[in-house]
Amino acid sequence: MVNAQNSPRLPLEGSLEAVRETLRAALRDVPPPLLDMTAYLSETEGKNLRALLLLASASDDEGTVPREAVTAAAAIELLHLATLVHDDVVDDADVRRGAPSLKSRFGNKAAVVFGDYLFCKCFSMVADIARRFEDQYQLVARAVTKICLGELREIQHNRDTGLTVRQYLKIIAGKTSAMFALAMYTGAMLRGDEPLRVRRLARAGHYIGMAFQLIDDCLDYETDGATLRKPVQNDLAEGVVTLPLILALAEKPELRDVVGRGLSPKEAADIAAQVIALGGVQRTKDVASRYCDKAARLIERETAGARREWLLRLLEKTRVRVY
Amino acid sequence: MVNAQNSPRLPLEGSLEAVRETLRAALRDVPPPLLDMTAYLSETEGKNLRALLLLASASDDEGTVPREAVTAAAAIELLHLATLVHDDVVDDADVRRGAPSLKSRFGNKAAVVFGDYLFCKCFSMVADIARRFEDQYQLVARAVTKICLGELREIQHNRDTGLTVRQYLKIIAGKTSAMFALAMYTGAMLRGDEPLRVRRLARAGHYIGMAFQLIDDCLDYETDGATLRKPVQNDLAEGVVTLPLILALAEKPELRDVVGRGLSPKEAADIAAQVIALGGVQRTKDVASRYCDKAARLIERETAGARREWLLRLLEKTRVRVY
Repeated sequence: MVNAQNSPRLPLEGSLEAVRETLRAALRDVPPPLLDMTAYLSETEGKNLRALLLLASASDDEGTVPREAVTAAAAIELLHLATLVHDDVVDDADVRRGAPSLKSRFGNKAAVVFGDYLFCKCFSMVADIARRFEDQYQLVARAVTKICLGELREIQHNRDTGLTVRQYLKIIAGKTSAMFALAMYTGAMLRGDEPLRVRRLARAGHYIGMAFQLIDDCLDYETDGATLRKPVQNDLAEGVVTLPLILALAEKPELRDVVGRGLSPKEAADIAAQVIALGGVQRTKDVASRYCDKAARLIERETAGARREWLLRLLEKTRVRVY
Repeated sequence: MVNAQNSPRLPLEGSLEAVRETLRAALRDVPPPLLDMTAYLSETEGKNLRALLLLASASDDEGTVPREAVTAAAAIELLHLATLVHDDVVDDADVRRGAPSLKSRFGNKAAVVFGDYLFCKCFSMVADIARRFEDQYQLVARAVTKICLGELREIQHNRDTGLTVRQYLKIIAGKTSAMFALAMYTGAMLRGDEPLRVRRLARAGHYIGMAFQLIDDCLDYETDGATLRKPVQNDLAEGVVTLPLILALAEKPELRDVVGRGLSPKEAADIAAQVIALGGVQRTKDVASRYCDKAARLIERETAGARREWLLRLLEKTRVRVY
């Protein structure tokens, strides 16, 4: 595997801005029929957690990253955007990042095709790096495959109140963690880490992704819409069964019948209160916390200097969910 | 550019069966949640025109193709399947290849995600060839980008009775011809043709794609559902403006107001009859025929032997639309 130690380097501090600029340029540099949509997307920037994990993983102990890491981080954010655009079609979600979702603004048809376009844009960007990092293409394709599988499993288990903890973990390992693992894998690979370390850091990324999704699933039960910038009790209303609910159902199986059918907003709010009272949310947070601990151990063992510091900081932000 | 002249070769005759076997294996070798969907897709095999164009373009004068051409042809058919699966969501089409469409059988949500999965599977397959043919990744990404753009333009011009011939040709150049051009480009590249010839054969592919789509648009006006294995006057009912209609509207502008709003099946059938009577269909066929002539001239000039023979035969099949 070739590494990027001979590329021009830039400081970790500030590299996120370079990623955002690359991303903005990619979204600006599109044919006219897409300009409305990409301009619209640019307005609602996310927190770029996946890009940050990639950059931090690619950093040396002194806190500088190879130029390729910026391209790769922009590509992973494009991939993330593509899945968000399609997710909003799949989830019929009208709000995303505090604003009307792309599909509610431009329609389902345009959103399906535009998501495909973003996928391609991501693959094109990867092709630029792939000249030197041959495996990257396969890696991206494999990660996206896992994401699709996770989402399909989730769709297949819609309103399935018999969903087991194990099945649930498998779903989120695909739909969320695969991209976190890809981010850290790519970063470590670009840094030139040995294969075993690359794999271990990818595993740390997987754990962070699991924690991220578990906390996300808790937020659906306990926050109001304004804080989270998206509708709450959405999962429940849409029939998406997550860990807080699975754990609550185990305590009070008679809820199954209610949850199995469509819920009014009032009913959803009532079930949410019960899920919290039955300890479903707190116990889910405990599980998330254990994933964070596992990730911390791997990062502490495998990294040093500025890289360790940044990765641990990102992990803490996941834990308390500023992101 | 590396060519594939040293790979194991197999006869053109029979190579399509190898492609179909590769495709079936790719659809069989999937994780359990997808098996239902892939099994379902396998049941409704298409005519594999894109694969055939690729294989024929890759053939030497004696009629043998390199092994990589089979992989590439299977990848392009997967790409075609991915776009069909998403198209059915976008067009809200319930019938495809004479059977209920995947989205009508499994739902829109699953179809969006499954289409994404097929894209990735295609990119994975390309990665196997791309070790030796570096540019292929960019080529595929670029072709898919063109397809997405064509589809977005079509969506944006829905019910636009002021659509010009030029705008229409640009739409179909993206949504249909880009993949035909990619097929012939890839075939010629795998064969080891010089760059200028590769580009000229890609252009022949573009012309064949244009003719294919023009004829398809005519069929929407004149066939009954049983022959075409999909609903007719679908374009008209869905507000998709195609060349037969554009030419008819130029003859009888007062039809614009009727076509601009939603049409009942009865109204659509009436408009279709008028489009035929006004010569819209015949003149569109004339345009298609001219594209076929241009493709024929390029093929005759640039190829020889078994390759020429096969390509001309596929062109004729497009012309009379056995496919």
